[in-house]
Amino acid sequence: MELERNPVKAVKLLAESLVLFRDKRGHLGLLAEACAHRRASLVYGIPENEGLRCAYHGWLYNAEGRCLDQPGEPAGSTFKNQIKTTAYPVQELGGLIFSYLGPEPVPLLPRYNVLVWDDVAGETNGTVIPCNWLQEFLARHAPSPMKKVRFDLFEHGIIERHMINNEEDESWRTGAPSFFPTTSLLGSPGGKSGSIIFVAPIDDTHTWFLLHMASRVSQLAAQESIPFFDVPGVDEAGKFITDTANGQDHMAVVSQGNITGRDLEHLGASDRGIILYRELLVEQMERVERGEEPMNVYRDPAKNHIIDLPAITPDGRI
Amino acid sequence: MELERNPVKAVKLLAESLVLFRDKRGHLGLLAEACAHRRASLVYGIPENEGLRCAYHGWLYNAEGRCLDQPGEPAGSTFKNQIKTTAYPVQELGGLIFSYLGPEPVPLLPRYNVLVWDDVAGETNGTVIPCNWLQEFLARHAPSPMKKVRFDLFEHGIIERHMINNEEDESWRTGAPSFFPTTSLLGSPGGKSGSIIFVAPIDDTHTWFLLHMASRVSQLAAQESIPFFDVPGVDEAGKFITDTANGQDHMAVVSQGNITGRDLEHLGASDRGIILYRELLVEQMERVERGEEPMNVYRDPAKNHIIDLPAITPDGRI
Amino acid sequence: MELERNPVKAVKLLAESLVLFRDKRGHLGLLAEACAHRRASLVYGIPENEGLRCAYHGWLYNAEGRCLDQPGEPAGSTFKNQIKTTAYPVQELGGLIFSYLGPEPVPLLPRYNVLVWDDVAGETNGTVIPCNWLQEFLARHAPSPMKKVRFDLFEHGIIERHMINNEEDESWRTGAPSFFPTTSLLGSPGGKSGSIIFVAPIDDTHTWFLLHMASRVSQLAAQESIPFFDVPGVDEAGKFITDTANGQDHMAVVSQGNITGRDLEHLGASDRGIILYRELLVEQMERVERGEEPMNVYRDPAKNHIIDLPAITPDGRI
Repeated sequence: MELERNPVKAVKLLAESLVLFRDKRGHLGLLAEACAHRRASLVYGIPENEGLRCAYHGWLYNAEGRCLDQPGEPAGSTFKNQIKTTAYPVQELGGLIFSYLGPEPVPLLPRYNVLVWDDVAGETNGTVIPCNWLQEFLARHAPSPMKKVRFDLFEHGIIERHMINNEEDESWRTGAPSFFPTTSLLGSPGGKSGSIIFVAPIDDTHTWFLLHMASRVSQLAAQESIPFFDVPGVDEAGKFITDTANGQDHMAVVSQGNITGRDLEHLGASDRGIILYRELLVEQMERVERGEEPMNVYRDPAKNHIIDLPAITPDGRI
Repeated sequence: MELERNPVKAVKLLAESLVLFRDKRGHLGLLAEACAHRRASLVYGIPENEGLRCAYHGWLYNAEGRCLDQPGEPAGSTFKNQIKTTAYPVQELGGLIFSYLGPEPVPLLPRYNVLVWDDVAGETNGTVIPCNWLQEFLARHAPSPMKKVRFDLFEHGIIERHMINNEEDESWRTGAPSFFPTTSLLGSPGGKSGSIIFVAPIDDTHTWFLLHMASRVSQLAAQESIPFFDVPGVDEAGKFITDTANGQDHMAVVSQGNITGRDLEHLGASDRGIILYRELLVEQMERVERGEEPMNVYRDPAKNHIIDLPAITPDGRI
Repeated sequence: MELERNPVKAVKLLAESLVLFRDKRGHLGLLAEACAHRRASLVYGIPENEGLRCAYHGWLYNAEGRCLDQPGEPAGSTFKNQIKTTAYPVQELGGLIFSYLGPEPVPLLPRYNVLVWDDVAGETNGTVIPCNWLQEFLARHAPSPMKKVRFDLFEHGIIERHMINNEEDESWRTGAPSFFPTTSLLGSPGGKSGSIIFVAPIDDTHTWFLLHMASRVSQLAAQESIPFFDVPGVDEAGKFITDTANGQDHMAVVSQGNITGRDLEHLGASDRGIILYRELLVEQMERVERGEEPMNVYRDPAKNHIIDLPAITPDGRI
């Protein structure tokens, strides 16, 4: 866990500059980076017992964004009560820290299988990809040439299947389900190991690609904390590192340009996954415009016990 | 003195690209960087006995911007007499070089105490700060939390006082006077050492922070020339260096952004210095608009003998 | 030859991002960098027996830009026949690779002397100059102060002559002819060695300066391939390298700015070369606007046998 080394971290999400911190009691907070007083960066702030204190004039904020102290103001001043900075709810699961930046009421944090297991060894890799999130996420729906490829809609998004040998391939039977809008799960239903990919929009031209891998070992052997690695996308000469499948994907999506010209593409029959996802995205945006909730907003704890990979029935249905 | 190492130096001030040089007689000049002939940079120019010669086609300019020679033109040509490039008056004081970029008539160069002393050892530090000059200069009027803080207008600008122990503190009795618009003096009236800060606008988003420190030693021990150091604002990883008070200030003002959103601030009682300075700035701009001269334009040599720190009277008045 | 090390190379010309490759048969191709399928960069493509295959989904293009294979599409699909990507004709001469990006019909590749000789030892140097091509090429018409300088129009462009000692100087008798629009030849007519400069526009603010030098040795001693060197324009501190004549020119033209303000120049009698070339450029653009061909479009092989330096007659005419 990265915050163990340094309890304050700059984070940019959805084009908002934020600061994530853990206070001395261990509570997490995610605040606007700029101090409400005179806009100095809270990345240089100091965690206190409760909250984060700005290094400039010492204003102290708690995780709700409330200002608890203004040392320069006269005794008895109520000025601090008028201050409320941007703050987002933060939650920890499986060694990762999640936040919700949307409208109230806050939904449940989806409990994907690899995050819920409490007996795992694993790691998380992060890479900043200099292109927009959609371009990056569509790499999940654009398979390399295989014997056979198939894309299916399911209740949570799209399943991509590809056959390397035969119908017994895990990549064919279970496939790689993507959970709308930006999560992918890999592994087998009820399996002993798995991985999950999160594609987090930093801003219109940058995306945080997060790959989290976990294997169930035993509660005795389980890691106390999950290590995090910053994985570079390019080498020192600025060339893409194409030794790994993810590196190859990054080359492909970034070399398209920051925001590629969709009108210049030529989509074929094998691009059904791309088309399916784009249609799904438009459909879900229309739902939101009508005031409805999009796919995968969890509010019922019973349905959020554990989100596993979808099992396929013998007749090929999910 | 920097020009001893290299007698030609690129300088950007008020968004103008200029070249400072010392010719072989020792005279200083400050010219537009682009040669009037074909716009090559005079930073690569060669100082001659009188003036600076462009390395491209050899046009020679004196410190008044007049073209003295055009080697490629026919003998007897008067073309050079038509050429006059931008040139600003330059003056040396206390080991520093000053220029005046405003309208005529040129006022006197203010003779601040540490610059006038001729028996000093000291040094000058310079840091390029990537934000606008006002944001940087306001750091002078925004003290860290202290026992007691006070800001007073005086005839040359604003005095900031803060108490660490009691009323005998130098920081309370003398305080830190800032001379409108962008100069600060530190030390004690008639003292043996002092320092001066100049905040020079490079362009709208860059500021040259200059700290000059001098201690009176004796004419025998005095330095022949004042060393100049480029002090970085950030370390190799791009993080602010916050081990020094000035480094902390730079972090605070730069992390606000290049030009911060003043409308997003929340000023309290302790921010009286910020408000005072902004009011003073507006008032002085209005004076200039009415055709009057702003504060601190020195024209009477008698009043410019030596500008010392203001002495405070026993009843607390200046 | 650079492609020997890596058979695929990114090239930007006239603001078009392209990819140059040599396939396994040895044929050259120059294609749009972005794959027509989903815009991934073909710089990461793999040369095949015929053509270049995109590393993303395996589309294969030949040198004419035709799509030969789409492995993901169903057997029997004719989708590939609809795909035609941008492709330009490429030709090799004297160890250099040339392309033509203009309208049809494709003219002949000019056969300049140093490129035609087949018994040479030499090298090619390339430098990317961060300014527009015209500014860079005008350095060819702006001599340093000399005893005497003269510019003459001739049937292919402009000859610059300068005298160092007397009328027997090669630089006076033959001079440096520039072939409209962006080529310069140096040496002597029918000589044993020579050099040629190509100024290739990368985009509006970048120019590829290519200097090719060749000496006739003997067919036995001739090089099998001409080495290519990337010559930096600036040192590690970002200062221009002014130890060479070309480095000095680069300093002069780049320090003028990316696209310099021509209206801020002051041209004298010695700038006749600059004026001549600008007039020639306007005149040739007007020809093209009228639907005529500009200077130096070769269509008759007889006139393109070998383009040598113009010989000067005893009475000083060409």
